[in-house]
This record gives sequence, structure tokens and C-alpha cells, in this order.
Amino acid sequence: MPDGIPDRVSIREVGPRDGFQNEPEVIATDDKVRLVEMLAGTGLKRLEVTSFVRADVIPQLADGTEVLTRAEIPDDVSVSVLIPNERGLDNALQLRERIDEINVFLSASETHNGKNVNRSIEESLEGLERVLPRAREAGLRCEGVISVSFGCPYEGEVKPQAVVDVARALWDLGCYEISLGDTIGVGTPLKARQLLRAVVGHVPMANLAMHFHDTYGQALANLYAGMEEGCRVIDSAAGGLGGCPYAPGATGNVATEDVVYMLEGMGFATGVDMPKLVAATNVVSRLIGRPPVSRVAPRPGG
Amino acid sequence: MPDGIPDRVSIREVGPRDGFQNEPEVIATDDKVRLVEMLAGTGLKRLEVTSFVRADVIPQLADGTEVLTRAEIPDDVSVSVLIPNERGLDNALQLRERIDEINVFLSASETHNGKNVNRSIEESLEGLERVLPRAREAGLRCEGVISVSFGCPYEGEVKPQAVVDVARALWDLGCYEISLGDTIGVGTPLKARQLLRAVVGHVPMANLAMHFHDTYGQALANLYAGMEEGCRVIDSAAGGLGGCPYAPGATGNVATEDVVYMLEGMGFATGVDMPKLVAATNVVSRLIGRPPVSRVAPRPGG
Repeated sequence: MPDGIPDRVSIREVGPRDGFQNEPEVIATDDKVRLVEMLAGTGLKRLEVTSFVRADVIPQLADGTEVLTRAEIPDDVSVSVLIPNERGLDNALQLRERIDEINVFLSASETHNGKNVNRSIEESLEGLERVLPRAREAGLRCEGVISVSFGCPYEGEVKPQAVVDVARALWDLGCYEISLGDTIGVGTPLKARQLLRAVVGHVPMANLAMHFHDTYGQALANLYAGMEEGCRVIDSAAGGLGGCPYAPGATGNVATEDVVYMLEGMGFATGVDMPKLVAATNVVSRLIGRPPVSRVAPRPGG
Repeated sequence: MPDGIPDRVSIREVGPRDGFQNEPEVIATDDKVRLVEMLAGTGLKRLEVTSFVRADVIPQLADGTEVLTRAEIPDDVSVSVLIPNERGLDNALQLRERIDEINVFLSASETHNGKNVNRSIEESLEGLERVLPRAREAGLRCEGVISVSFGCPYEGEVKPQAVVDVARALWDLGCYEISLGDTIGVGTPLKARQLLRAVVGHVPMANLAMHFHDTYGQALANLYAGMEEGCRVIDSAAGGLGGCPYAPGATGNVATEDVVYMLEGMGFATGVDMPKLVAATNVVSRLIGRPPVSRVAPRPGG
């Protein structure tokens, strides 16, 4: 690429978790189940369904167990859940047969990590030392997402070395995939390439993922730049859902439909059925009462 | 690039022309003058102010002469106008001292050219044989925009060879710059690179420009891809204004503020004052009664 062999790109759909977690209104469980099933039927092969967080902290996802239990998801779709701590892992292990993968997270900046989970980065890593081995023993794959990898709403610029340090720690703890999260969407293409290049000295490119929010419209350009660098795993959310409750000004993830449009246009066979994906996006849009934050999905009446 | 020396990028702001031409409501002349002056004060160095088209065809720009005459534009801002034919050139030459550059256009597909100007491509080129030498004699630089370079709403895929043929014809007729227009926004990054690579055999890269509409959210990724290929001239519109009356479903140009955000993030000094640009975008937004189609410019109340 370019002109290379159109190899495989892995899209991880995070809308049901990253999206609904940030909606002021709690979405009904029935609606969540329906959306998860629609997304699982689009051809997307990786789906972050929910998060096992404390219900008093994120009531939007208090029904995670029910959604996971009820949603009918094809066997070839890898199901993941976000796990903040050992208690979250306990919940996940009770639904072991429904889950293929857990996602853990950590910030590249101390201030964001503190606001997000009330711990230092060191304390978060210590927590993961208890979570990750148990998850792996249970046969769960573990992905680590590094928040604010490109910039922090509190500390401003984040040095690549801070991301490298966290990435290496996550890798050493047994994460099979490290996702570089641009939580507030301040990354630009060359920074995406440079950060990947810095991290790839410690984590193989095949085990790196990109997670871009689209606050300033840069997400798709950043993903393309990262693909030029060799990265082939992309996090996205149907309809551009998402945000971060502890990242002021953060808007949604890059929209899955825009990512699929780009990949297909570049000759990558994503296996995603675009009409089905747009239909799922329209459901999202009705549930949250806003038009999709994407270009591919048509706006109501537009 | 990447890691290269941050060289110069030329942004051509086309909002006042490409944008207002497509608005159902005619914008008041006073408002246009104000917006042109605001944009000219942002640090943008190239501004397409209006078009000399027939008032009965595009009443939105019937006041082009008045806007050009009244707007106070710094000397270091290059002013251009769109010229569809010799009569348009006559009008432009009457305001010679206000204009630095004319833009002519042509489609890469016969059907779109026919719908757009009721001529075959050959007939359009014959018309340009009369327009371009006169314009150059008058000391005006001439840019040629090739519409539907990546796809046609009537014919579908457009072969790069069709674009190459038109680009070469425009170059041979004396255009100093050829802009590859993705009128309906169907381009994706590798196609952008491939098209530039096809055309650059006939027109030097320094004389090529990129004009992407953002229908499917691909514009910024395409521009980055084109920059990787070496292209350094970008057309954009404040607030993502624009469209094409003869291209069903086409939406606006890539937003200038999103382009500036990307370029500055990549280390290119654009010279554009972002707060002033966002202020101009907010004026656009009020004039057309819609929020800006961009991410960098904040939405009202958002």
C-alpha cells in the first residue's frame, strides 16, 4: 500500500460501549440488544458490547450483563467488554462463554488517569497486574487502550515517550493488542505516523491499533496515515458515537461507515454490508435523538 | 514529508464562489462583501471571490461585479473569479485591476460537462482556446478545475486517463495550475495518489491542485494522501460551503478550518489566524442558516 496487495484490516466496533456510555439519557436495554444484534449482523467481526463498570458511576451501562446475555451474536464475531478493575473482570468471567476479549485502559497522562479512574498510572498498572493474568488464564484475549495518546485536556501535549512507556508496560503485562487512543481528537497525520513509529520499537505493528476521535475532523486522515505506516487495526463507532466523560470537549469516535467507505475505496474488502451498517446507524441516531456524526450515513431528510 | 522539511502549502479559499453559488437563498451583497473581507483578513492568500456567470442561470452570483468592486482586499491576497466563457472574461477584464487570476472549469465526463455547461468536452476546450490566450495577454494567471475527476453522478467511475487527457489539454492551453476536482466526493486516499501520479506525467506536481468535496468524509484523508504524493495546493471552503447544482447528492467542499488544523498539526505554517477564520465561518453559518459542515468550527451552542 499504496499499490500494494490489499491485505486485511480489522475494524473493532466500539459504538455500543464507547457510545452509549457517554449519552446523557440511558438507552433502554431492549434497544441496546437490538442495536448490538444489528451491528453483529453487518459483517463487522469485532464488537465492544458493553463495560463492566460500577452502575453508580456509569448508569448508562448498568445493564451490561443483560445485554451480553440476551444479544444473539454470530460465533464468528469477537465480543469484547471494557474492564476497569478486578470486580469488572469477576463480572466478565461469570459470562465467560459470551466473551472473547476484554479491554483495559490507561491514560498516557497522569492528570487524565487521575480524573478518569482516581489512580496514578503506576497504580493502574498495578491493578492490571492482578486483572490481566487472570483474564489470560481464562482464555480471554486482552487489549489495552491508551487514552489521551496525542494530547490531554488537562496537560496539553503528550510526549510520545509517555505513550511508549505505557504501551511497553501493557505489552509486558500480556496485552496482545495496544490501541493508541486519541481521546480528544487532537492528532494529525504526521503525529499519527510518528507515534506509531515510536511505539513499534516495543510492540510489533501487527499488535497495534488506532482509536481516533474526530473532534477536529482529522480521524480519517490519521487512520490513513497510520495505515501507510503499516497499522491494520482500527477502532470506530457506528454513527460516530462516543466521547469521554472526563475529557472536556471530546466528541465521538470516527464513524465506522466513513472508515468502511475509505477502506473499500482503497481496495480492502471489509466484509461489511454498508446498507446494513447505515441501517444500524439510523437506529443509533433515533436512540440518541441526534443525526449521525458521519458523512456516509445520510442525515434524516437529507 | 513525513519528517521532511515543512514546506509551503497554498490554500485557495473558494467559499464565496463555490459556496454561495449553491445556496437556495441569494445572500445579500453587503453580507458577501463583509464575508470576503473577513476571509481576506484571516491570512489566507488566495480567494475565489465570485463567478461571472449568467445572472439568469446563477442569480446567487449576479452581483459579482459589485462584490469585487466594493470588497477591500489586501494586495497580498490573490483574487480569482470563475469564468465560464468569453462573456465572463469580458466582465472580468473590465475589473482587471481587482483580479489576479481566473478559474476555468471542465468536466472529465461528457455527461457531466453536458449537464453543467451544455457542451461537449471538445466544445468546452474550443471555448477555452478563445478565453485563455486573452486572459494571459491581460496578465491574468489561469487555473483550470477538472470536475468529477474521481467519479461522475451520471457515468459512475471516471477513468484516470480521461482526467489526464483534460489536464494535458488545459496545460497545453496555458493554464498554470490544474485542480483535480472531486465534485461528488467519492475519492479515497489511494485513488487520490494514483490520479496525481497519472497526471504528473503531463503536468508538473508544482502546478497541480486538489479540490475535494467531503460527501463521504474522505476529503481530509485524500488531501493528506495527495500531500504524501507531493501536491501542495489545496482548494477548500470556510465552513465546508459548496456543492454542485448539476451533481445530485454532492455536498460541500472540505472545510478550510479543518484543513488548516491538519496542516498546522503537521508543522506547516499556514499563516492563517484560526480565530479569525472561525469567526468568518460563523458569519457564513448565520448567512446560510446552517451550522458549519466542519469539525474545527464550533457549532452554535455546542
